[in-house]
Amino acid sequence: MSDERHFTDAHTPIAAVADRLRAFNRERDWEQFHTPKDLAIALSVEAGELLEPFLWKRPDDALAREAIEEELADVLICAINLSQRLGVDLLAAVERKIARNAERYPVSLARGRADKHDVLREGVEPGGEG
Amino acid sequence: MSDERHFTDAHTPIAAVADRLRAFNRERDWEQFHTPKDLAIALSVEAGELLEPFLWKRPDDALAREAIEEELADVLICAINLSQRLGVDLLAAVERKIARNAERYPVSLARGRADKHDVLREGVEPGGEG
Amino acid sequence: MSDERHFTDAHTPIAAVADRLRAFNRERDWEQFHTPKDLAIALSVEAGELLEPFLWKRPDDALAREAIEEELADVLICAINLSQRLGVDLLAAVERKIARNAERYPVSLARGRADKHDVLREGVEPGGEG
Amino acid sequence: MSDERHFTDAHTPIAAVADRLRAFNRERDWEQFHTPKDLAIALSVEAGELLEPFLWKRPDDALAREAIEEELADVLICAINLSQRLGVDLLAAVERKIARNAERYPVSLARGRADKHDVLREGVEPGGEG
Repeated sequence: MSDERHFTDAHTPIAAVADRLRAFNRERDWEQFHTPKDLAIALSVEAGELLEPFLWKRPDDALAREAIEEELADVLICAINLSQRLGVDLLAAVERKIARNAERYPVSLARGRADKHDVLREGVEPGGEG
Repeated sequence: MSDERHFTDAHTPIAAVADRLRAFNRERDWEQFHTPKDLAIALSVEAGELLEPFLWKRPDDALAREAIEEELADVLICAINLSQRLGVDLLAAVERKIARNAERYPVSLARGRADKHDVLREGVEPGGEG
Repeated sequence: MSDERHFTDAHTPIAAVADRLRAFNRERDWEQFHTPKDLAIALSVEAGELLEPFLWKRPDDALAREAIEEELADVLICAINLSQRLGVDLLAAVERKIARNAERYPVSLARGRADKHDVLREGVEPGGEG
Repeated sequence: MSDERHFTDAHTPIAAVADRLRAFNRERDWEQFHTPKDLAIALSVEAGELLEPFLWKRPDDALAREAIEEELADVLICAINLSQRLGVDLLAAVERKIARNAERYPVSLARGRADKHDVLREGVEPGGEG
């Protein structure tokens, strides 16, 4: 097997990973369980598992790196499965969201501040969006 | 601007999205807030927001597609930010996890069953893994 | 030991459970870890563990009742620990929230509908709250 | 209305709160939506909303106390609704879990340590529980 078949963030489009996952699920006849609702539940469960290794940790504590990587992978698998099920292009959605965030968090207002967009605009604009 | 600059699952490697996010965060001086722990919290919060549009929904109910796409994008943004912060290659981690799942869920055992790997193996093997 | 010492929803005020938990934590010198932020993380992690036994389950599937009870207990323990840490009276907060929900979801509008309050009011009121 | 009707952690048993919630739900004909699975989803969504006010916060940052109280109340409401739906006595489950934690985290081992029980026992016992 050549290295090109290996997945990396540098080279592999998500579509190739989605293909691999679709074959994996089909072989096991798992599409029947993969309703959008259950895939969203699965993603939320995995997000909780990803959060667990950080619980009670202080800034200088060592992190359980391997566990974190594995849970991060699980989150991504759920996100890809859900996007496939709904026919959503994940990275196109990410691009739209970055554009929206650029509007909500203009550099002039957001620089060095961790506040949400509605708080950022308090005192700046009369109304503000929801 | 040519179409090549647009993100799609078919063509864009995650590394290109990560570059865009890194520039976005740097312009706003947000790296100071992006500890691994807070990024994992952010991902979990977004996973909850992604789950909300499915709450109380029955199989035939219409889904709030636009909201779901936006929350899915937020989850992915958090996952990419966290992977960058930790130096994890997301898709390499996904490939390793798929390989692990292939071992845990062999087709012969898992076909048509939604049980977890430890339940699947009950009665098949004396011990079983954790 | 007499039965009065046992906790039940019918008889035990949360304050008595909080006392027991405070002693438990103090004996182990765990208050140092119990920042409000980490207790909120803990509660979220436990909520994910509570959700997991429902994943992929269809309406008629059997539920892992014992696991669910244990995770529900964990959620409550986190909620009580967090309320103690912040000096919040949980049930007073619940009463306030029920009153708020009664305003947001008047019987005349909400009866038989699972919509959120802002959706419920669409077409009923010109503005609507956030 | 006399003060006795108000809920407090010092005096009110959870059963009284459960009665109030049952009446609230019945008036709105909401029991039809309250499957155990959807109540567990609701609790998880609320746990995410409770976590959000802590996101990006450093130890000395001010907390959005009112929002936190309200989300904590929502978590408790979901927990009570779910316990009622499943016929679980919440505080009895909490008592059992405290007893289990006392075994898993004996003072001699757990004092001043935030490690999970399986990590605590490493090097202490040959096997260890799951």
